[in-house]
Amino acid sequence: MDRALDLAALAMGRTSPNPLVGALVLDASGQLVGEGFHAAAGRPHAEVGALAQAGERARGGTLVVTLEPCCHHGRTPPCTEAVIDAGVRRVIVAMEDPDPRVAGQGIKALRQAGAEVLLGVRQREAEHLNAAFCHRLRTGQPLGLLKWAMSVDGRTALPNGASQWISGPASREWVHRLRARCDAVIVGGGTLRADDPLLTSRGRRAIEPLRVVISRELGLPEQAKLWDQSTAPTLVAHGPEAPEPERLRLDALGVERLELAGCEPLELMEALAQRGCNQVLWECGPSLAAAALRQGCVQRVAAVMAPKLLGGTAARTPLGDLQLSSMAMALPWREQGLSRSGDDLIWELNGPEC
Amino acid sequence: MDRALDLAALAMGRTSPNPLVGALVLDASGQLVGEGFHAAAGRPHAEVGALAQAGERARGGTLVVTLEPCCHHGRTPPCTEAVIDAGVRRVIVAMEDPDPRVAGQGIKALRQAGAEVLLGVRQREAEHLNAAFCHRLRTGQPLGLLKWAMSVDGRTALPNGASQWISGPASREWVHRLRARCDAVIVGGGTLRADDPLLTSRGRRAIEPLRVVISRELGLPEQAKLWDQSTAPTLVAHGPEAPEPERLRLDALGVERLELAGCEPLELMEALAQRGCNQVLWECGPSLAAAALRQGCVQRVAAVMAPKLLGGTAARTPLGDLQLSSMAMALPWREQGLSRSGDDLIWELNGPEC
Repeated sequence: MDRALDLAALAMGRTSPNPLVGALVLDASGQLVGEGFHAAAGRPHAEVGALAQAGERARGGTLVVTLEPCCHHGRTPPCTEAVIDAGVRRVIVAMEDPDPRVAGQGIKALRQAGAEVLLGVRQREAEHLNAAFCHRLRTGQPLGLLKWAMSVDGRTALPNGASQWISGPASREWVHRLRARCDAVIVGGGTLRADDPLLTSRGRRAIEPLRVVISRELGLPEQAKLWDQSTAPTLVAHGPEAPEPERLRLDALGVERLELAGCEPLELMEALAQRGCNQVLWECGPSLAAAALRQGCVQRVAAVMAPKLLGGTAARTPLGDLQLSSMAMALPWREQGLSRSGDDLIWELNGPEC
Repeated sequence: MDRALDLAALAMGRTSPNPLVGALVLDASGQLVGEGFHAAAGRPHAEVGALAQAGERARGGTLVVTLEPCCHHGRTPPCTEAVIDAGVRRVIVAMEDPDPRVAGQGIKALRQAGAEVLLGVRQREAEHLNAAFCHRLRTGQPLGLLKWAMSVDGRTALPNGASQWISGPASREWVHRLRARCDAVIVGGGTLRADDPLLTSRGRRAIEPLRVVISRELGLPEQAKLWDQSTAPTLVAHGPEAPEPERLRLDALGVERLELAGCEPLELMEALAQRGCNQVLWECGPSLAAAALRQGCVQRVAAVMAPKLLGGTAARTPLGDLQLSSMAMALPWREQGLSRSGDDLIWELNGPEC
């Protein structure tokens, strides 16, 4: 199963809206005869690849798979049928598929066809691997990550607004790799106006994440790197109050627009989940970050901390008002990881309810 | 020498204005026959203790000492005489004493008396051990440490001012241990009014550090834990503009006062160095911390970071304005240590010039 989980992880950031899945086939004597993983939506499922590689040697053998095989016709036929047709005798599964179209029905179908099914092997690891996919199916929202780069005294810019660069080159590459694991990267209008960011993984992901600007009243610059969609697509979400001339200008640029009734982070997250985003990255300023946190759109944060002192009474900080009135309301987040990145530290934390 | 350095460190925080010193005596055959360390100002020097323990066995032997033996009459007689009288043949010294009354003269005196002297063994470690003492002799100021506790988003209080407690109990104990290594702990009037702190090591240091309040115009509360000097002494530094009635009230409380012409951090540091403070801890609010940094009164910072998000547009941050106008002016600090303290992280950094 560890090998199957490793195979699954090879497609990290490339399978949305689908989960990451890896599979192995052992023949009747226990020899490894096939391996597969799900590489992208629309491509064959992991089980199908592994069974194809095994061929006739799968008969009487064992399938090891990180997620319950599907039993419905999606873009590809049900995997349960392929497993049964291949004559597999035993199926070892890490976790049930939370997709309501499967949800135990795949395991039931395999058992009804006479296969022995063992469920729950390395379940925790499998759930961790597909945390974003599971979160989307449970909540109807993508898993939200929020990252910021700050000085050790908690500043994200100098008093004069300068912010390039607080963190070192290794940390900026780390952010590119982080984007490659996400389906969308979100900024507000303020960040677009101030930084004119590119927001790509710099080619670390074959299909770059969707770049999203959320800006209630628009007022976005006429020239911006995000308007050049030759390397990555851009979506602009705005409120009903957005002026008509700017809408037309964006349409003329070929930039996709999305009108949201309240133009709130939560509405955007629901829209992105419907587009199949499992995991999104907030790379926004303090007000939007605080709004996203207050609306439950952030499950993980990553603070990139540089060994510099910036100071500044009115200098920018990572988060605006969270409306906390007592220290007891500030629930502790749980450490997911602490790593060094050049001279910087990266502290990753999971939300209290996560 | 490693053993001698360990012996020296036993008196950490108790020797000011003197340095930490450890010494060993080996007899002519290389057997360890005496050990000593300098326990406190006015108490015997390390060499004298080690030689006394060795007695006649020191004759023809070796003295290993972390700092050049003194050659002047201070509160105790010159150590060079004791070394020569004991008949020691070889002296191994980690570093020269930067005290201008010694500064190589001790080594010269030993050599003139016929002893073989080896200088520079474990010099880096010895200099590190007495970094604060060396800094004071070089600059006429104590080594300045600045610590703060903040949330991972860089806040030292909630928007409503609540700050107890951001960090966990393990970190608060770490601060008590930090205070035990310092000769004075400094706050401003704002911290005194807001927090009414105790500022002691909670008994971890036999003689508690001097508690210092720096407040230009005073206006300090009539009741404060710092006015009870049964556990630790308190010094109030103020400017010439401090009103007479409050001066008289402090005098009546038995609290020592120090009038400073400009009431600036640098003046206070010079006054504390003259009182024999080698190392002081700034535990103040953002304005005073920024002023201390701008005036070169801080050589090390320790950021205690709690895994909480506090947010708040106007919530307190560690540092006020440092008057930086470009990112190039924010020189990187060098990591001295990174440690875990319960769920918190403690990141200790040395200043760019340190």
